[in-house]
Amino acid sequence: MKINVIKSVMEASDAAAAENRQRLDAAGVVAINLLSAPGSGKTTLLEKTIPALGADAQAAVLVGDLQTTRDAERLAGVGSAVTQINTGKGCHLSPTEVAKGIDSLDLTGLKYLFIENVGNMVCPAAFDLGEHLRVVLLSTPEGDDKVAKYPTLFQGADVILLTKVDLIGVLEYDTGRVREDLSHINTRAPLIEFSSVSGAGMDQWLDWLAEQAPK
Amino acid sequence: MKINVIKSVMEASDAAAAENRQRLDAAGVVAINLLSAPGSGKTTLLEKTIPALGADAQAAVLVGDLQTTRDAERLAGVGSAVTQINTGKGCHLSPTEVAKGIDSLDLTGLKYLFIENVGNMVCPAAFDLGEHLRVVLLSTPEGDDKVAKYPTLFQGADVILLTKVDLIGVLEYDTGRVREDLSHINTRAPLIEFSSVSGAGMDQWLDWLAEQAPK
Repeated sequence: MKINVIKSVMEASDAAAAENRQRLDAAGVVAINLLSAPGSGKTTLLEKTIPALGADAQAAVLVGDLQTTRDAERLAGVGSAVTQINTGKGCHLSPTEVAKGIDSLDLTGLKYLFIENVGNMVCPAAFDLGEHLRVVLLSTPEGDDKVAKYPTLFQGADVILLTKVDLIGVLEYDTGRVREDLSHINTRAPLIEFSSVSGAGMDQWLDWLAEQAPK
Repeated sequence: MKINVIKSVMEASDAAAAENRQRLDAAGVVAINLLSAPGSGKTTLLEKTIPALGADAQAAVLVGDLQTTRDAERLAGVGSAVTQINTGKGCHLSPTEVAKGIDSLDLTGLKYLFIENVGNMVCPAAFDLGEHLRVVLLSTPEGDDKVAKYPTLFQGADVILLTKVDLIGVLEYDTGRVREDLSHINTRAPLIEFSSVSGAGMDQWLDWLAEQAPK
């Protein structure tokens, strides 16, 4: 019979996260954890962002999925170092998986490490991976009620991207409701209205990223 | 220190699910578990379906969310009995929560019990709630790669609704890829192309539901 001690598991998880952060700090890398529901545009965001960062801003990606290497294959096209982590039945990345991911990378000269978490609005919010910053994506077709329904996810965000805003014209979508719900939950994180199709919000997002760059 | 015995927890969960199913069978109710990512259209589907079932097909809803009663408020408008279950930080409904939900309902004369699970493509797939059938929704804006990424979810489906097909014109979406991925994972469940905006697939969905009605 398997006995699982919850408290120890969370303590071990937090210790592994702290160790990841220490390694990244020592290497001068800023780690950014991307969290959202499935299909909100995390991979597309990275496909657009990494080339736009320019040649002197080296970026690598760890990408989590239950199955497949589809996201890693898409990101390999933009020329960054990419490691796919398959979690099997796991609904989030764990800091020990991220540690193995870091092992797989050459940190020399790296500025940004993007960690694309498993698409899920619940589990990833509960696990510190050793990141410095959290980006939460919310796509307009998911509906304008998600901030109130998943407060833990949005509370932890350092920046929030409202993605697929090009679809607002064909959806019944109330951006005001999102802002109103956020005003009760997280007033710290900027909300960027973003579209990889129209290019909306891209400059604001790149400016935010530039501010977070390691000194 | 809290000690959690995984095996016993799953056994207790399955026993609670079996008990729910027994109660529902005795009452002549067919229970349908709806699973999908957040914002795929579960609540909208029920808003459209329950009035369309007609007066002699009594339906009730148990609706799971981490927070808020927004979905229950929307469904109260269509006149069915609705019970909201808030799971707090839980990423899925559990059979014991569903048992309490069943307690809250009058089963007399009821034909359908719809259980709207927490929006999540991972956790809900692992828990039998005592349902008879599983409906999995996949919305087109989530992307055409989700069947391969979340096979466990789609393996358990008795019917799959590809929702928001009215958006296919503005998305780069390959329905053929979804069908190809499903051909390796689940050939049993029909795939219905559905839109609550255009009405596409509604007749096929209602026909499927009618076939599942308790005799």
